[in-house]
Amino acid sequence: MTIHETMKAAVVTALKSPWEVKAVPTPRPGPTQVLIRIRASGLCYTDVHLTEGGLIDLQLPSVLGHEPVGEIVEVGSAVRTRKVGDRVGTNSLQTGCGRCEWCSRGKMIYCADQKILMVHQFGGHAEYLVAEEAATILLPDQLSFENAAPILCAGNTVWSGLRAAEPLPHSTVAVVGIGGLGHLALQYAKTAGFRTIAITRSKDKIALSRELGADEVVGSGEELARVGGADVILSTGNGYRTASDALLGLRPEGSLVVMGAAGPDEDLVIPNRTVFPQMMVNRQKIIFSQQNGREYLHEAVAIAGRGKIRVLTETFTLDEVRTAYDRVAAGTVRFRAVLVP
Amino acid sequence: MTIHETMKAAVVTALKSPWEVKAVPTPRPGPTQVLIRIRASGLCYTDVHLTEGGLIDLQLPSVLGHEPVGEIVEVGSAVRTRKVGDRVGTNSLQTGCGRCEWCSRGKMIYCADQKILMVHQFGGHAEYLVAEEAATILLPDQLSFENAAPILCAGNTVWSGLRAAEPLPHSTVAVVGIGGLGHLALQYAKTAGFRTIAITRSKDKIALSRELGADEVVGSGEELARVGGADVILSTGNGYRTASDALLGLRPEGSLVVMGAAGPDEDLVIPNRTVFPQMMVNRQKIIFSQQNGREYLHEAVAIAGRGKIRVLTETFTLDEVRTAYDRVAAGTVRFRAVLVP
Amino acid sequence: MTIHETMKAAVVTALKSPWEVKAVPTPRPGPTQVLIRIRASGLCYTDVHLTEGGLIDLQLPSVLGHEPVGEIVEVGSAVRTRKVGDRVGTNSLQTGCGRCEWCSRGKMIYCADQKILMVHQFGGHAEYLVAEEAATILLPDQLSFENAAPILCAGNTVWSGLRAAEPLPHSTVAVVGIGGLGHLALQYAKTAGFRTIAITRSKDKIALSRELGADEVVGSGEELARVGGADVILSTGNGYRTASDALLGLRPEGSLVVMGAAGPDEDLVIPNRTVFPQMMVNRQKIIFSQQNGREYLHEAVAIAGRGKIRVLTETFTLDEVRTAYDRVAAGTVRFRAVLVP
Amino acid sequence: MTIHETMKAAVVTALKSPWEVKAVPTPRPGPTQVLIRIRASGLCYTDVHLTEGGLIDLQLPSVLGHEPVGEIVEVGSAVRTRKVGDRVGTNSLQTGCGRCEWCSRGKMIYCADQKILMVHQFGGHAEYLVAEEAATILLPDQLSFENAAPILCAGNTVWSGLRAAEPLPHSTVAVVGIGGLGHLALQYAKTAGFRTIAITRSKDKIALSRELGADEVVGSGEELARVGGADVILSTGNGYRTASDALLGLRPEGSLVVMGAAGPDEDLVIPNRTVFPQMMVNRQKIIFSQQNGREYLHEAVAIAGRGKIRVLTETFTLDEVRTAYDRVAAGTVRFRAVLVP
Repeated sequence: MTIHETMKAAVVTALKSPWEVKAVPTPRPGPTQVLIRIRASGLCYTDVHLTEGGLIDLQLPSVLGHEPVGEIVEVGSAVRTRKVGDRVGTNSLQTGCGRCEWCSRGKMIYCADQKILMVHQFGGHAEYLVAEEAATILLPDQLSFENAAPILCAGNTVWSGLRAAEPLPHSTVAVVGIGGLGHLALQYAKTAGFRTIAITRSKDKIALSRELGADEVVGSGEELARVGGADVILSTGNGYRTASDALLGLRPEGSLVVMGAAGPDEDLVIPNRTVFPQMMVNRQKIIFSQQNGREYLHEAVAIAGRGKIRVLTETFTLDEVRTAYDRVAAGTVRFRAVLVP
Repeated sequence: MTIHETMKAAVVTALKSPWEVKAVPTPRPGPTQVLIRIRASGLCYTDVHLTEGGLIDLQLPSVLGHEPVGEIVEVGSAVRTRKVGDRVGTNSLQTGCGRCEWCSRGKMIYCADQKILMVHQFGGHAEYLVAEEAATILLPDQLSFENAAPILCAGNTVWSGLRAAEPLPHSTVAVVGIGGLGHLALQYAKTAGFRTIAITRSKDKIALSRELGADEVVGSGEELARVGGADVILSTGNGYRTASDALLGLRPEGSLVVMGAAGPDEDLVIPNRTVFPQMMVNRQKIIFSQQNGREYLHEAVAIAGRGKIRVLTETFTLDEVRTAYDRVAAGTVRFRAVLVP
Repeated sequence: MTIHETMKAAVVTALKSPWEVKAVPTPRPGPTQVLIRIRASGLCYTDVHLTEGGLIDLQLPSVLGHEPVGEIVEVGSAVRTRKVGDRVGTNSLQTGCGRCEWCSRGKMIYCADQKILMVHQFGGHAEYLVAEEAATILLPDQLSFENAAPILCAGNTVWSGLRAAEPLPHSTVAVVGIGGLGHLALQYAKTAGFRTIAITRSKDKIALSRELGADEVVGSGEELARVGGADVILSTGNGYRTASDALLGLRPEGSLVVMGAAGPDEDLVIPNRTVFPQMMVNRQKIIFSQQNGREYLHEAVAIAGRGKIRVLTETFTLDEVRTAYDRVAAGTVRFRAVLVP
Repeated sequence: MTIHETMKAAVVTALKSPWEVKAVPTPRPGPTQVLIRIRASGLCYTDVHLTEGGLIDLQLPSVLGHEPVGEIVEVGSAVRTRKVGDRVGTNSLQTGCGRCEWCSRGKMIYCADQKILMVHQFGGHAEYLVAEEAATILLPDQLSFENAAPILCAGNTVWSGLRAAEPLPHSTVAVVGIGGLGHLALQYAKTAGFRTIAITRSKDKIALSRELGADEVVGSGEELARVGGADVILSTGNGYRTASDALLGLRPEGSLVVMGAAGPDEDLVIPNRTVFPQMMVNRQKIIFSQQNGREYLHEAVAIAGRGKIRVLTETFTLDEVRTAYDRVAAGTVRFRAVLVP
């Protein structure tokens, strides 16, 4: 395959402005990097946050996209464990400093001096991507690129959150918010053998939740309590109010896992009557979680590779990226937008 | 010893009113109960909460006190494991329903139909107390009654909180609030081998913290971060703001343990900038904890029995109970008020 | 219902001799005890061990049986949480000393001064049984007596063993020995969502294992390794050799759980080549486990009560007890013998 | 500094033969490797095992040594996180395949296709060593090279073993065998706040154990039981008999950690009377452990860097290596032999 000197990419040229699809130089891999021909790149609400100036400051121009998957077309001179033709994915975290306590512990997810896609180098909304050999993960043959992309971020996030809660066999797992994260959370919990409860008030999502494996669907924390409560509540929405409400249905020794960040103006508020007596007497926890390192990512991908997860995606070409963006920003995508260059 | 038909007790006759020290009938043990001659009874801020109408509704008249210790002077007809002369303590929880899921699991602390001191039967601020055989704990010979009383509630609470955080060897443990709970928390953490940091702005408590074993003393969460942060933060105060502030010094994978309930009008608020990126990226937890069952209580008492904990108490006779109450309510006791009938 | 002064029971009058079915005085409950009309009483290989003089010394005459279930027909004067008509079961452990470290911790399963059925009082192979109120567990309405009996010991044992291994979501669980314990272990693992592998060489058990939910059936530890190995191996047989062999198929960080004691002359031997490098490099564990307290028993019963476990039993009347005994001793029962008085 | 084309090294030219100190080509770092000027290299009993033809097959000629520390004098072209002058150590594991399940999980210690010092490239008993950038760990400034070397293997091993046992605060930790591993195990346990008991019959080691922080010294598992037993027993010897004996002093829910492999002819034997009732009723574990990855190594080094561990070493020059070897083989070194080129 010929690799041209320029490639097509969706470029952020200014904050709060539409992305521009244009030609940029095709990146070349350094000695420990690989060049990936992008086959699918998930477009996540985080991309909207970043374009709007939230979460982290971008250096412009930037290319976003942190769920990219594809085939390796070139490897750097020092690459030892990847080869041309490998089907791989990567996510935002590329390297840590290698010298701090956390890098020394093998937990560079806590390093304060990380190099990440989108901020320090271009992300996946393009034809090609350069990624560190050590930051790529091999994809199972059975997993299509289109389904793999959302697993790299969304699937990884919800599986990490479920694992962080350390659910016991036969636990009941409730999912707040049946959207991009939530529809995967429900399936990951179900395939792992847990009793699952969806918390949603949206009529079409009630039916969908049952299709995806929810044993019950309820509309609030109080209703959750009435059906026996949950040992683990996975909060997947972009706000804290529904999470806080769901606490009313948390069983003794249970955990609420917060996986979605709210907008900048919303603090996490737990009403005092929930703290005491409920949460203190019942020894409950709130666990904050995101994508949590290689072990959980491996598991999320492997489970999807066994055909256990049905990823609901809408695909767009790079030229359709503004439509895709608008639909993600409006929350109308069902449920993960994937760019297919 | 002759047990008279009436005994002296500090009686709550009306909410928000001073307790009255007067004669009430001496209680008699049922078949599974023991009668304890009270030697010391800790007066805790919870007693003030209850008298003011907070936390739980009291049926009046009531006698408060949930840290009572003394000697058994009479045993019920079916008592098998306790005998006259045993030095014992008890705490508020006497029985569960015995039939619900949680009683069936052996975790009656979560039973919704508990019988507890102060609410369903008189508590410890009296000359005698009736307690369930199974709700008493034998006291080590070396532990004086005066030092034992605060361990039954305050010591139990802080040790339960530290254990709930599952600290690893060589963890750093910070304590927010150096008062009735906090001065014990600091010592329990230190004697278990952890590096300890006190968080306080009060000048006299800085010196005291060092005396009690604090390796460092800082004034805020930011300062905590500057000295390297803590893996576990034990929040012991009667409010959530200092706890929320302390989160700024929480290390990756660390836990904040909330052990003290705030007044009715204060919600627990975690600022969004603390939730994300800090807490989500660093996989941190908030653990809600109280007195957590027999195992932790056993350990709290055993550690104190080995002379490892210096309980700072002020003792009062039953006749001085109003003074004691006022000082506890005003927060001027250093640090646990103990009634010695 | 009239309770006669004598009842029929299967009595051990001498070690290594057949049990005698004869009339003995019907026991009466003490103040903290209940009288149970036995509806089913599991006959377990432990009964054979004891009759042969193994495990624990019996005081004769004795009545064995430690999986008894039935209805409460009388309650002691101090009983508070059980009532006539309750459907309950109990198992061997009735009381601890109430004073040692382990009783103080709420873990009387480790008390050195226990009072247990068969040794200190008659067991369940009779028309009636006296049991401590606190040692009984309520049975779900949907669970028949015949199916409940084996859960009280065998189900409890295998569920406790699985829980002791702390399996992670999506773990693979292998079961060595598809007999009285093993056929339940397989089902408990399957219903909790794990991938299950039966290890057996017996042809009829291969088919049965698949019926009971085994995803794979293999014949040895080497074969187990070839199909990918297991994270947890539950050894349920009456010998250690098959357990030790199965270790060859244990995955990194995996656990072998030993639940069945061998005869007196067989030591547990792990070949050095298995210890190193395999077990040491792969950080594997051997966990020894038995019936492990109230929490696991509650769960084992609750799961069975949801209809998830098909207990394979052969029922016998008390008068047929010698036949039942001989078949258990010969290992020909499929798979749990239950006496139905 | 000039790096000459040849360096002095202790070379294994034939199994079961003395090492030869001679000139070999100085290795050059590949793109992801660093060249270390060796300042200290621990000589461990594993080196004797390997020379005698045990554990793993060597390709000859080989240079042994898997506890090397020194200064980086050259870095490969793709090295990003290490620089000339860095004080570092490494241990045997250099790379995994990067493609298997375990490499994908970030746990290459379980990879079946590892590249390790001594077997696939020369080890540390030389003037220079080539190591993978990612396999090096930075050393704290306060930690001397001589003390650091034994931490890279022996210290790492014992700390990994203690951590694998997941000791609770206030646990009692016993150490079997007060030698190269054991004298470090005792100190690591003590500095982490645990009550420590040494198990040894050797008179001079009794005194030494107390010096190193043992709270008690006993001579056998039975004596261990008499002083209350241990929650964790760390077995550090080159044989299993003392480990098996020590089990008699293991407390309920306790763990025996096996860290030292025996010679090829000794199997691990647990007498049946220890398995049942003791280990099964008391829910005890046997944990097999070795050097367990980056997190534990980081902690072992950091704790030593805080001056908490007194490493007893005897130092030898490269020219004295045969003397050093003979003393290690004879078990007469106190306690770690360190080569200082």
